[in-house]
Amino acid sequence: MKIVGVIGLGKMGKPMACRLIQAGYTVIVHSRSPGPVEEVVALGAAGAPTPRDLASQADVIITSLPDSSAVELVFLGEKGIREGASQNSVLVDTSTIDPQTSRRIASVLLQQRVEMLDAPVSGGQAGAIAGTLSIMVGGPETAFKRVLPVLEQLGRTITHMGPSGTGQLTKLANQIIVAVNYVAIAEGLVLGAKAGLDPVKLIQALQGGLAQSRCLELKGERIIDGNYEPTGRLTLHIKDLRYALQTAHSLGVPLPITSMVHQYFEATRAAGRGDWDHSAVVTLFEDWAGVKIRQS
Amino acid sequence: MKIVGVIGLGKMGKPMACRLIQAGYTVIVHSRSPGPVEEVVALGAAGAPTPRDLASQADVIITSLPDSSAVELVFLGEKGIREGASQNSVLVDTSTIDPQTSRRIASVLLQQRVEMLDAPVSGGQAGAIAGTLSIMVGGPETAFKRVLPVLEQLGRTITHMGPSGTGQLTKLANQIIVAVNYVAIAEGLVLGAKAGLDPVKLIQALQGGLAQSRCLELKGERIIDGNYEPTGRLTLHIKDLRYALQTAHSLGVPLPITSMVHQYFEATRAAGRGDWDHSAVVTLFEDWAGVKIRQS
Repeated sequence: MKIVGVIGLGKMGKPMACRLIQAGYTVIVHSRSPGPVEEVVALGAAGAPTPRDLASQADVIITSLPDSSAVELVFLGEKGIREGASQNSVLVDTSTIDPQTSRRIASVLLQQRVEMLDAPVSGGQAGAIAGTLSIMVGGPETAFKRVLPVLEQLGRTITHMGPSGTGQLTKLANQIIVAVNYVAIAEGLVLGAKAGLDPVKLIQALQGGLAQSRCLELKGERIIDGNYEPTGRLTLHIKDLRYALQTAHSLGVPLPITSMVHQYFEATRAAGRGDWDHSAVVTLFEDWAGVKIRQS
Repeated sequence: MKIVGVIGLGKMGKPMACRLIQAGYTVIVHSRSPGPVEEVVALGAAGAPTPRDLASQADVIITSLPDSSAVELVFLGEKGIREGASQNSVLVDTSTIDPQTSRRIASVLLQQRVEMLDAPVSGGQAGAIAGTLSIMVGGPETAFKRVLPVLEQLGRTITHMGPSGTGQLTKLANQIIVAVNYVAIAEGLVLGAKAGLDPVKLIQALQGGLAQSRCLELKGERIIDGNYEPTGRLTLHIKDLRYALQTAHSLGVPLPITSMVHQYFEATRAAGRGDWDHSAVVTLFEDWAGVKIRQS
């Protein structure tokens, strides 16, 4: 398990590739955009012209891609991973996609005896850089055990959830909680701002009690600064909420608040903020109340 | 500041009184129910027959009461605190009540030169027992500084938010975030349960990433066990949400999700679970999806 391929060098894939280089793995990369490839190659990685080419050389193939259709194309499309992977490879998809698509791709690959894990992550870009992600893994236990040393370079909480698709299902629960929690924070902080409270003190008091959360810890200060430089893009979170609602529908689970929150995320995108950080849903509530959460 | 009075010996007031006795303060208590009074007297406190009587003896008077009307009665009613308090007393109301009532009571007392702080707390009964509460204080800075050593026996995060009422406003933001976060957790865990995920692993994975929260940390295991023994009662949280929505209305702040969540709390109460823990809103979502979040 010494040669690791990374496909997709976005906000999450690039820091993952960098950590693996630093950990001493031989790293091969492939990405649509040439800029990140050059950066990672400069740090010691090799480039591969196609996913197929990369897959034919690597023991472990990690993908970090934006959505279900991108994953389907890279795994099963022309010059895709399937054409290069062998029985000795383990495929690890860290993208967040819908569980049904994830299971379908895994079962296609299993027909040629290639094992695939769904292994979406949470913790944002900061977690990817620090190697402290939560990694939620679905798929065969044997494959999980084989790649665990590689995953341990990327994450701190690594949980084997069960069979194929269970990693994605876990991530959907995660995305529901994060999105709804951002709106919880939005309503609480906007009320405080309109009442004239100092937001720095407000966040300090909230973090000391039951309202404490990682979202508030990582994003509170940025919200006060009006800094929505993305560590995770709002449009990508909208996609995750869509997958969650589709999955909930197929299982017969009503998600009334997630459904509303999904629409507030859409309203934030409609206001031209789709490329901002996912916490930017807060700005919608600021607009409605006619107030900014900022230090006076 | 050696004699401390505690009025209201419920889930929060009783452990507060016990901590102060342990810390070496002379403690006087008053409560409607005789049981808790006897318990605390057995530990070394003195009992007082009325709030007036208690207030005439204590340097610091701490109240822990269920709602605005109880606070109004105990402070301004017949044989109430006002009749016993002097310019040397500091009154510290740790109840969660509406900010307007809190400010009004403080201004009535200020007319007779008695200083009152609003100092609601978060962290639940566990935080009260361990002395790790978050205490959100509004009122005169001089009074705050005088009682700080007493508050330090009760809480770990003690924040002076500003003038009278700002402690209550902070607590309302806290209660919004906690209530909405419980529903976030409900929707995420119920989806996971219906999809067949192991809830113990699910919570472990969620706590490792952006979905982490104190609510999930303290209540996750209880939710799996179906244990809704109250550390904070649902009906009391409903009252807090009502105060939050009233305050938001008067300030012109729309709170669409809090408003919906308030109704889900009401639906939980309507199902006969008003005396359960406030996290019991989760059971409503279990009922809707026809599934229990429990270990298989």
